[in-house]
Amino acid sequence: MKFLDAEYTLETDAELGLVEEVLDQFFTDAKLRAVSLHPAYLSLWEAIERNAAGGKRFRPRLLMLAYRQLGGSDPTAAAKLGAVYELLHNAFLIHDDVIDRDPTRRGVPNVSGHYANKARRAGASAEAAQHAGMAAGLLAGDLSLAGAYRLHEAVEASGEVRQRLNGILDYAVFSSIGGELLDAEFALAVQMPSPEEVRTVARRKTAVYSFEAPLQAGALLAGAPASVAGRLADFGRDAGIAYQIADDVRGTFGDEEDTGKSNIGDLREGKRTVLLSYAATKPQWKEISQLVGSGELTAAGAGRIRDLLTECGAREHAVHLASEHAHAAVKQLGEEIPAGLAGSLERLLFSLLAELHSL
Amino acid sequence: MKFLDAEYTLETDAELGLVEEVLDQFFTDAKLRAVSLHPAYLSLWEAIERNAAGGKRFRPRLLMLAYRQLGGSDPTAAAKLGAVYELLHNAFLIHDDVIDRDPTRRGVPNVSGHYANKARRAGASAEAAQHAGMAAGLLAGDLSLAGAYRLHEAVEASGEVRQRLNGILDYAVFSSIGGELLDAEFALAVQMPSPEEVRTVARRKTAVYSFEAPLQAGALLAGAPASVAGRLADFGRDAGIAYQIADDVRGTFGDEEDTGKSNIGDLREGKRTVLLSYAATKPQWKEISQLVGSGELTAAGAGRIRDLLTECGAREHAVHLASEHAHAAVKQLGEEIPAGLAGSLERLLFSLLAELHSL
Repeated sequence: MKFLDAEYTLETDAELGLVEEVLDQFFTDAKLRAVSLHPAYLSLWEAIERNAAGGKRFRPRLLMLAYRQLGGSDPTAAAKLGAVYELLHNAFLIHDDVIDRDPTRRGVPNVSGHYANKARRAGASAEAAQHAGMAAGLLAGDLSLAGAYRLHEAVEASGEVRQRLNGILDYAVFSSIGGELLDAEFALAVQMPSPEEVRTVARRKTAVYSFEAPLQAGALLAGAPASVAGRLADFGRDAGIAYQIADDVRGTFGDEEDTGKSNIGDLREGKRTVLLSYAATKPQWKEISQLVGSGELTAAGAGRIRDLLTECGAREHAVHLASEHAHAAVKQLGEEIPAGLAGSLERLLFSLLAELHSL
Repeated sequence: MKFLDAEYTLETDAELGLVEEVLDQFFTDAKLRAVSLHPAYLSLWEAIERNAAGGKRFRPRLLMLAYRQLGGSDPTAAAKLGAVYELLHNAFLIHDDVIDRDPTRRGVPNVSGHYANKARRAGASAEAAQHAGMAAGLLAGDLSLAGAYRLHEAVEASGEVRQRLNGILDYAVFSSIGGELLDAEFALAVQMPSPEEVRTVARRKTAVYSFEAPLQAGALLAGAPASVAGRLADFGRDAGIAYQIADDVRGTFGDEEDTGKSNIGDLREGKRTVLLSYAATKPQWKEISQLVGSGELTAAGAGRIRDLLTECGAREHAVHLASEHAHAAVKQLGEEIPAGLAGSLERLLFSLLAELHSL
């Protein structure tokens, strides 16, 4: 089973076509404008569009689910708002990859990788090519971020709903970038962050923009009361942390063929996950710490780390923690949330956990 | 005389205090929110605020000048809109410095420089410290860019004016990032860009967001007809190109003590200016091309390049070109523009030229 297929249980496939239409239109407009500025600019926009293609549209799915289940009747408007969060996601992915110096995404060159390869072919040194890739990634992320705001302005909403939607987008950006900063600072620090700090990063960097904001935005656009949006935000906080922990477990213990994602990258990078944070307090850490965080980590070394993480209880701890947050999330839903919506959100989390146990 | 003091001739000093108030409030709000997320996030916001301090507020000045002279009666609203363009400017400065790997701005460490120094003090290698600086600069620029949009949403305007203001901001971002991309691509190319290409970059990267957009936005917020805003945009296009050329001449021939800016940095970097583009077609290019673009360029080497640029006529050509664009700008003003506004804009350009001749 493909891990995190849970995301596909949201049952909004028919309406998701509307999101694709908004994104298509956005990129078509941008490319038309870009080519009139310079053909090189068109290439950058094509790279941004490629980076956005093939995503699971998880944030628009959540947003449209909340919108529909709370009585929203204009799926086109919801699709526009969903596309905002997809562009925001794309901006964060592009800039994350720049910060991580990662040249690929979903197995193919990302924006930076594409531009670095291009510079290399044109005769640039490895260092100059990497720099060219960084610059292109930086500009591409800026365009995707600005694009999210631009599309957001075009969502039809007025008065108080408009104010609140602005506030939600703003908070999502503010929180995610703060989380990214903490992530970068913790990665630099000699000491491993505490499990609490790792979860704070997960919430700030992932939960807010991936769960809390899309659910709240969908609810408010549908005209739901603020209390319902608040409940969904509470749900989203814990669900997002569970999701991030599950993603980290997958990134270490998942089968690459199943997940389509390297299961050695996080270990090479020494990514500050709940797994490592827990292990840092155990005797096995002495050996683990000599292996993780090295670009030269071999498949055998990674295998050894996995064994040690299992042995010291880090794996079990992480799975348990994901489960705890998932249950806490479900508890937040309460009576105000319509049964259909609550049911969909519960199924999402339980299939997440089922997949986690089947790894 | 301090070069480009021309910018100070805009006579809006009293109203400029309002812009400072908006910026102060913006940063105070952001820092309060940031510290509630994590003290490390507060530090990043402080670095962003420092980067924005000490700027000449040129874009808000232009915007408020147009607003006032075209009958605008709510300087507080104009100040908010002016602050939007200052934050946008700040975002571009921060990201430009990341792309140029420049650790200082106005003689002091910029955001990246500050974070690189901090990492260095904490024991990071030179390479890791530079990377930490890059990451912080990238995030800081994102926050400043998002902040510009956030503040823009809060400008009170409705209906058609709101739509147009959105379009102007959007186009400014789109154009500037396109210009930055072209700049980066031309810097990588073996061939020197043509003078026409250099001016295209100047227009896209500088003129649109520094002149065209603030003037148009100020006019529209004041309720001026679209034709007046259009005239001002036409003025801004040529004025912005003249300004960029003047800035490049200053960057090579200015006295560091007068300008507060290194006069060797552009030459070390091999920045694609009108000066170099012109010189590339002259016999002196053989010697110039062996000196420019090297991080090891000495003061004596820079002196030699200056002599060669003067000898081959590049300096005179650049000054002439700036003058041509300044005159073309003034010609665009026409009868629709009130005499007071036209007079201020003319004075701005003529003092720019006077300063250029006195270098």
